[in-house]
Amino acid sequence: MKKELFRKELAGFQSYVPGKSAEEVQEEYGLTEIAKLASNENQFGPSPKAVEAVCKAASEINYYPDPFAFELRKALGVKLNVKPENIVVGSGGEEMISIIAHTFLNAGDEVVMADPTFGIYQTTALLLGAKPVPVPYKNCRCDINGMVNAVTDKTKLFYLCSPNNPTGDILTDEDLDYVFSHVPEDVVIIIDEAYYEFAKENPAYPDSLKRLEKRENVVVLRTFSKVCGLAGVRVGYVITSPVIAGEMGKVKQTFNVNRLAQAAALGALQDEEHIQKTVAGNARSLDMLYEFFTEMQYEYIPSNANFVFVNVHLDSALIFEELQKRGVIVRPGCAWGWKTWLRVSTGTEEQTQMFIRRMREIAGTYGRE
Amino acid sequence: MKKELFRKELAGFQSYVPGKSAEEVQEEYGLTEIAKLASNENQFGPSPKAVEAVCKAASEINYYPDPFAFELRKALGVKLNVKPENIVVGSGGEEMISIIAHTFLNAGDEVVMADPTFGIYQTTALLLGAKPVPVPYKNCRCDINGMVNAVTDKTKLFYLCSPNNPTGDILTDEDLDYVFSHVPEDVVIIIDEAYYEFAKENPAYPDSLKRLEKRENVVVLRTFSKVCGLAGVRVGYVITSPVIAGEMGKVKQTFNVNRLAQAAALGALQDEEHIQKTVAGNARSLDMLYEFFTEMQYEYIPSNANFVFVNVHLDSALIFEELQKRGVIVRPGCAWGWKTWLRVSTGTEEQTQMFIRRMREIAGTYGRE
Repeated sequence: MKKELFRKELAGFQSYVPGKSAEEVQEEYGLTEIAKLASNENQFGPSPKAVEAVCKAASEINYYPDPFAFELRKALGVKLNVKPENIVVGSGGEEMISIIAHTFLNAGDEVVMADPTFGIYQTTALLLGAKPVPVPYKNCRCDINGMVNAVTDKTKLFYLCSPNNPTGDILTDEDLDYVFSHVPEDVVIIIDEAYYEFAKENPAYPDSLKRLEKRENVVVLRTFSKVCGLAGVRVGYVITSPVIAGEMGKVKQTFNVNRLAQAAALGALQDEEHIQKTVAGNARSLDMLYEFFTEMQYEYIPSNANFVFVNVHLDSALIFEELQKRGVIVRPGCAWGWKTWLRVSTGTEEQTQMFIRRMREIAGTYGRE
Repeated sequence: MKKELFRKELAGFQSYVPGKSAEEVQEEYGLTEIAKLASNENQFGPSPKAVEAVCKAASEINYYPDPFAFELRKALGVKLNVKPENIVVGSGGEEMISIIAHTFLNAGDEVVMADPTFGIYQTTALLLGAKPVPVPYKNCRCDINGMVNAVTDKTKLFYLCSPNNPTGDILTDEDLDYVFSHVPEDVVIIIDEAYYEFAKENPAYPDSLKRLEKRENVVVLRTFSKVCGLAGVRVGYVITSPVIAGEMGKVKQTFNVNRLAQAAALGALQDEEHIQKTVAGNARSLDMLYEFFTEMQYEYIPSNANFVFVNVHLDSALIFEELQKRGVIVRPGCAWGWKTWLRVSTGTEEQTQMFIRRMREIAGTYGRE
């Protein structure tokens, strides 16, 4: 028998097919303006203090970055009231999730997660031969009970995404209490809080760092990509126990967080003004979207993030295409098996109005399924 | 039995213990100047065109990078006379090697490499449960014959590092002929050319891209970290067959190369002047080092890179410490089991003279073993 050339787990992997870039869409349809509301980017711009820090650090990019991101971990520790040894920094949330997978998973291990949720939990597990166990939403809510019941002797990781991507809903303290009292101690509970700064405006959003005081096997994940507007330089981090942080340190690449990302993140940490501006702009955009959805009688899940998941009662692949032709790029729900839903990122007033205008036109043409 | 919490392969992993940073050494010993010649960084600075490109791109770091680095792959393709689909870009050579490991290796597979060589070939294999097969140097030369003989039915990857790190020697066309005619077609031959631009000054340095025309399972690895002075932003790439590039694309993280790295690399590609300046400065530094080594009767391996491996006939851990106290940081050969050797990066004239001055002092104190 001929030896298989490639890692066997890859046989089931599809190549990633990206959406078109704003430039490609613009060119293809001869458009003068584009609103890309597909990737939950910060449409209010990056933190100006981060941009300044990048330019200042640019003259030293011939030197390797600090492999431990020590200054950044120290600054984060002060802000979050934890020690630097509780923190691991990575090249965006995606690398953090890959590091988490490599820290814990062997072939055959199981990983419990909601469905729909962020797809990387699944792909990182599959790459290592582990088994994702997705638990479907019930009535547009995370089925915490079903997730807890899905835990077996083989479960290694238990992912909570709050606010959840693509739905934007949060888990409450009551939800976490239920999970933490029912999931065995030897299962690692990961709370992905990529949209933390938006969600914490909601009084019902729990302080997940408190959970670390009572249980070693907890990992809280956050990022500079969203509210700080640093998606392009790649910097995310986890807060966890020193034991887990130490093992994650063995897995991560030596120089995983580039110099400019470390500088940008340090700059953004000083930029409360930019965070407040973003959170306020986000709330305005959400209000405009909610008003439109109500007028159209579209069901939507109230968002705690910088995107909203909405049922437009039409085939999402079709609406995606129709919107794209008109210069608006969103994420169709069919990507998660939610056929008539769209995930729409928030934007500036102009971008949000453009989405509303185009969506109104399309609804006028196609009506409702 | 209690379930093992961590991935089983990590049990044998040590946490990475970095050398001290230049700042830490300076503070600890109260020094006024420091020459860090330990990481083969470009001491002549980053490409100015890259720095300019970074500052220009900084205002858009709120947007995710192009997941396919298409502009960069197109520009590289033009320069190297290959197609963009022959190229995969990653976050430095280290990520490329991790992607290579994940593209091919399952538990039990074997990976042949020289000893000493770049340590990441080994760690990435071990993380996936594969078996590194290091083949010791013979008479300060890569034992190509021994490496070919180490290939078994289980061999998946065959690493050639040319110039080799830490030794700085190259493989010739004759060496490659021998490898390519003896290593079976279903073994992937990886040629790591991180120091390509320095080595190609040597007429005996082969054009490895030609090998791609005759064999599908070849991967040539290069980087912007060294001659272009972009170690801090992390960007490396491979040139390979479209089939292998496609599988590597399944493994890599979606946004693995950050926006500023892509911009910097595009800038550096236009900066032939900076490359020439670096290559010339490197040659001057090597000449100074060779002259000193000859005077001291230190055996050294003539270098084709921006570092040189030298036998100082004293315990390298001791010499490392003594040099560090005096503000010069190098890499002790004991890291690779070469007890009396040092790897010294090239530097500016001042840095090189500082190393020579300090080394002379130390040799005066300790003599020769």
